[in-house]
Amino acid sequence: MAAISVDLIISAQWTIPVIPKGAVFEDCSVVIDQGNIVAILPTTEATRKYIALEHTELPNHVLIPGLINAHGHAAMTLLRGYADDQPLQNWLEKHIWPAEQQWVGEDFVRDGTELAIAEMIRSGTSCFSDMYFFPDYAAEAASHSGIRSQIAFPVFDFPSAWGRGPEDYIHKGLQLRDDYKDRDLTRIAFGPHAPYTLSNGPLETIATYAEELDSHVQIHLHETAIEVANSIKEHGVRPIQRLVELGLLSPRTQCVHMTQLDEQDISTLVEHNAHVVHCPESNLKLASGFCPVTTLLDSGINVALGTDGAASNNNLDMFGEMSTAALVAKAVSGNAGAVDAHTALQMATINGAKAMGWEDQIGSIEAGKSADLAAITLGTIESEPLYNPASQLLYTNAGSRVSHLWVNGAALMIERQLQTLNEQEVLTKAKQWQRKIAHNR
Amino acid sequence: MAAISVDLIISAQWTIPVIPKGAVFEDCSVVIDQGNIVAILPTTEATRKYIALEHTELPNHVLIPGLINAHGHAAMTLLRGYADDQPLQNWLEKHIWPAEQQWVGEDFVRDGTELAIAEMIRSGTSCFSDMYFFPDYAAEAASHSGIRSQIAFPVFDFPSAWGRGPEDYIHKGLQLRDDYKDRDLTRIAFGPHAPYTLSNGPLETIATYAEELDSHVQIHLHETAIEVANSIKEHGVRPIQRLVELGLLSPRTQCVHMTQLDEQDISTLVEHNAHVVHCPESNLKLASGFCPVTTLLDSGINVALGTDGAASNNNLDMFGEMSTAALVAKAVSGNAGAVDAHTALQMATINGAKAMGWEDQIGSIEAGKSADLAAITLGTIESEPLYNPASQLLYTNAGSRVSHLWVNGAALMIERQLQTLNEQEVLTKAKQWQRKIAHNR
Repeated sequence: MAAISVDLIISAQWTIPVIPKGAVFEDCSVVIDQGNIVAILPTTEATRKYIALEHTELPNHVLIPGLINAHGHAAMTLLRGYADDQPLQNWLEKHIWPAEQQWVGEDFVRDGTELAIAEMIRSGTSCFSDMYFFPDYAAEAASHSGIRSQIAFPVFDFPSAWGRGPEDYIHKGLQLRDDYKDRDLTRIAFGPHAPYTLSNGPLETIATYAEELDSHVQIHLHETAIEVANSIKEHGVRPIQRLVELGLLSPRTQCVHMTQLDEQDISTLVEHNAHVVHCPESNLKLASGFCPVTTLLDSGINVALGTDGAASNNNLDMFGEMSTAALVAKAVSGNAGAVDAHTALQMATINGAKAMGWEDQIGSIEAGKSADLAAITLGTIESEPLYNPASQLLYTNAGSRVSHLWVNGAALMIERQLQTLNEQEVLTKAKQWQRKIAHNR
Repeated sequence: MAAISVDLIISAQWTIPVIPKGAVFEDCSVVIDQGNIVAILPTTEATRKYIALEHTELPNHVLIPGLINAHGHAAMTLLRGYADDQPLQNWLEKHIWPAEQQWVGEDFVRDGTELAIAEMIRSGTSCFSDMYFFPDYAAEAASHSGIRSQIAFPVFDFPSAWGRGPEDYIHKGLQLRDDYKDRDLTRIAFGPHAPYTLSNGPLETIATYAEELDSHVQIHLHETAIEVANSIKEHGVRPIQRLVELGLLSPRTQCVHMTQLDEQDISTLVEHNAHVVHCPESNLKLASGFCPVTTLLDSGINVALGTDGAASNNNLDMFGEMSTAALVAKAVSGNAGAVDAHTALQMATINGAKAMGWEDQIGSIEAGKSADLAAITLGTIESEPLYNPASQLLYTNAGSRVSHLWVNGAALMIERQLQTLNEQEVLTKAKQWQRKIAHNR
């Protein structure tokens, strides 16, 4: 039988496909053609059955689905470490919002998003969700770098450099959605900022459009106790209940943070099949509270993982986020078996895909899916001895050891060298922004 | 005026001396002679006043005191990832203790400790405390690699491969203490394992010796709620109170973990001037509980930081530990200002030195102290833009970017190359142990 021609074979020492959960394959190959995964099979068999234009051998690595960072504000990477150790309201009102008012514009968003994408690629993220001003520039940066993205254009009551108000934001966002309707790697979603920054009108409008267009919606929700208390005071109901009443909670809704949840809130999430995006490091750093991840997972709620913006983290490393999610879930639930390594990996891959409605294409290494893959080097001082590759990914700061990243079969990083972004150029721009912002503080 | 001859000048872009707290020097040099810090001054002045045999320029780096890992079990690095996602008792009784019974011996301790030291050097640790079987082999490995250490020889009621019981352990430990009495870099301390593994007799003996010899004592204490409950059942008092009654709580005592504390326990710590060693990642991973770090610090208690063994962490990276300590302290106290970057740095440096009674020599960059220093590369994608070097150390996974490490003025790592350990040899041995242990499971 003649060998079948394909574009790429990747042969790794270990492969963790995420589906089926817990599987760890040794000496297997992923066969890729036209951006898609054709087969996963033992390497000896793969090299007999297929002949590839390119064969990447990873004898000392583990291959996983590219990680999915389900919540962030990429351009805010330009404000990394600008204001630390501050509570959320203070951090926003005294530091972040004034800085944004002064600096945010097209260049800021383009340069900041590129810096964020470079960092995400270098730490194994192949898909990210973004919510920020000038989403057209974020979408363009993502597109240009070859990374997959959900760009949730922001909507709030107040005007900004990007627009005059809710109507204008929605109008511009729908235009952007139209511009990107034929792009495989970029999806435009609605990003109503939060219940406390939006009145009922725009929230209802978004609910109507989202249903009509079958579009996803990402919203900050129940991030702090104050948010919940204020909503009760102002609207008579908790924020999630307000979203229900406005028709905005559905299987297309991605609820970000959710640190303040009572039993009724959890039932509401279950009833409406909404998704939770957990951002543990941001929640800890801003002292917002603990998302009850174990209870949510046990209730059958889909929980994805996000880093939030670098201004409140201060990194975009999903390996660190997985580790923090696992460690904190154990302590909060009082059960050291909670959120084991494979569960954390699910949260950072297939659960993110499900939240974005993208689980038919990404989130696991399966035949028929897109070849969005990350490889991590093992065999270093920090990762030996190796009894369990999944554990090594979770608990040994693996983010700095990501060696390769592919999206749709295209390499965005090879042996830690970025392929689609110019690292020096990205760094130079970051330093220029730092000088400008710091000197005008 | 003629320039003064010295051994080494290190000129870094940034220097964070830890004392005074919060200081960040730009373009300064640390002048070193015969292992000691002679001066810290502007680089232009340093190169005029001093002439050095060696001048290390670090134009893109931050220089800090070498980190002090105040609690661990170095040789257990050979069991990294051997059993994850298990509660403490199960983890110990079903997995760790059986594995130790089968494997622990002189070779295991020597090879495991070397692997741990290699990892610690690579992540900026210049001093560690150890508590494990065959402490003579750990001390020898530490000594041979040039790292600074406190070796707390273990004592428990039961026999082990290392000895027949408490008397034998204490006898061997005192012998070891004698062997090392003239060594600057290695101090031998008492390591009574925990109140629940020791009866009153040996604890009293240790208290007597520790006072007589002015020797430090490290003990696991109030690690879990079960430990406290059992002590009340068996001894009628909480573990810390039992130590008080046996004369074992003093300014020489390092209490490790302390996740279960009531007000009385905290008063007891204050009254006896005992030290706490906080191990946040291990406490989270084993779901042991939250150490009330902020309350302890506010009460004036000295809180140092440790990684615990790699079998329950699973890494020895003190940068990760600092970050986790800072993030969790904020969430637990509900105050985003709690444990800011400079406080976390103190915990990982000068506070560790104080706990070990070594604060006259290490823990800060000050004239007269030993030149125990670590340099971290900035200017990477992950650490730009840079508004605040301390924040970058804490929140951007800086452990993998440590470039240099010195102990007593001697370089243990230069540009990530180990100088005193053979990295390949350490790796080969780790892989050999992995095969042996995994295949005989």
